[in-house]
Amino acid sequence: MQLGRITGTVVATRKDENLEGLRFLVVNELSGNMVETGKIVVAADAVGAGVGEVVLYAQGSSARQTIVTKDRPVDATIMAIVDLFEVNGEFRYRKE
Amino acid sequence: MQLGRITGTVVATRKDENLEGLRFLVVNELSGNMVETGKIVVAADAVGAGVGEVVLYAQGSSARQTIVTKDRPVDATIMAIVDLFEVNGEFRYRKE
Amino acid sequence: MQLGRITGTVVATRKDENLEGLRFLVVNELSGNMVETGKIVVAADAVGAGVGEVVLYAQGSSARQTIVTKDRPVDATIMAIVDLFEVNGEFRYRKE
Amino acid sequence: MQLGRITGTVVATRKDENLEGLRFLVVNELSGNMVETGKIVVAADAVGAGVGEVVLYAQGSSARQTIVTKDRPVDATIMAIVDLFEVNGEFRYRKE
Amino acid sequence: MQLGRITGTVVATRKDENLEGLRFLVVNELSGNMVETGKIVVAADAVGAGVGEVVLYAQGSSARQTIVTKDRPVDATIMAIVDLFEVNGEFRYRKE
Repeated sequence: MQLGRITGTVVATRKDENLEGLRFLVVNELSGNMVETGKIVVAADAVGAGVGEVVLYAQGSSARQTIVTKDRPVDATIMAIVDLFEVNGEFRYRKE
Repeated sequence: MQLGRITGTVVATRKDENLEGLRFLVVNELSGNMVETGKIVVAADAVGAGVGEVVLYAQGSSARQTIVTKDRPVDATIMAIVDLFEVNGEFRYRKE
Repeated sequence: MQLGRITGTVVATRKDENLEGLRFLVVNELSGNMVETGKIVVAADAVGAGVGEVVLYAQGSSARQTIVTKDRPVDATIMAIVDLFEVNGEFRYRKE
Repeated sequence: MQLGRITGTVVATRKDENLEGLRFLVVNELSGNMVETGKIVVAADAVGAGVGEVVLYAQGSSARQTIVTKDRPVDATIMAIVDLFEVNGEFRYRKE
Repeated sequence: MQLGRITGTVVATRKDENLEGLRFLVVNELSGNMVETGKIVVAADAVGAGVGEVVLYAQGSSARQTIVTKDRPVDATIMAIVDLFEVNGEFRYRKE
């Protein structure tokens, strides 16, 4: 999984019918120092995440293993909201 | 998923028979600022998209989860046409 | 899918038995301007392609969805020979 | 698989229910010279690994083939703890 | 598939039980000019390859389609030993 911060949303009314009901969020990938790497991905939301939150997202076929994304044509899914990210014994992120 | 703009088409008459009837479009990947990154992908069209439109495309096995691409040898599929792309509270793209 | 030009062949007699009968071709990835990007991939041939031809190839599990590659350990397959590649209204490639 | 060193942990209480009970570790990818490449991945732990250990991790659908990750939405899993890493006849790493 | 040269081995006694009996080799990716690109991958061996040999390896779910890697958590497998690699009509590699 990669660490990312949610920065936006995508609205699409014309889409494959297997996508009905999914929310699409814009995720900026974060490095191990919690800095944006410049890469973005549009991910389906499986956990009710919101803009500004730090999350984990899964890519590829694993993105279809959550309850809400099963058998749907999505290749990236937010599957967890991060509470704590600790590296080398220091807290790099702590949800308030 | 990644955000892209459709810029062209590919025609191929000699192909695996599991590809019959699919349309192949050229998609230029877009960054979070709606700038072309220089990467292109040739994607199957699952939504009736046209040249110039901003779309979402899925890659890998997820590209085979739409109605029209099921069990076909395609690794990229356009599965949604973007209406609205909003980042950090501002509209970066709005379909007219 | 990516666009590529076939530049060579690979011969391997000692291999997993699920690979028997497959032809392996060397494919140079092409950019949207039909220039080689420097990346190569060795792909199974599902369409009877030959050296010099411009093709589409699929990667990952999608490479196993053609008639000849089903259930075989290949992660890249040439699944179409390109006749026409058109971008921004101009023909970048036309098979003669 | 890639070689990596475990440098931290991620805690997430709000997550897809298919993730319950998994431990998430931060893995820094290592080059063939055992130097960190700068890439990190958050991986599920299938072997009881700890911070500081050198491990192998699998990505993509293969990350779901261990006993503890079957059918779960994870795209990276630590599936082995490295005892010995030998390249060109010299030991680059030996677990103490 | 990618072309690579085997340069080493990895020993791991503590691992997921689905990995029992597999051999792990270090593979250096080769470019089309038979030069190491700097990328390494640790791959399962499906063909009895040895250090120094030039091989083809498959990645992703295709790495699990050989006889010895079926349903195992490996994302890279050596599935062929290269005898001949020919590009633009010249032999870039020929096994002795």
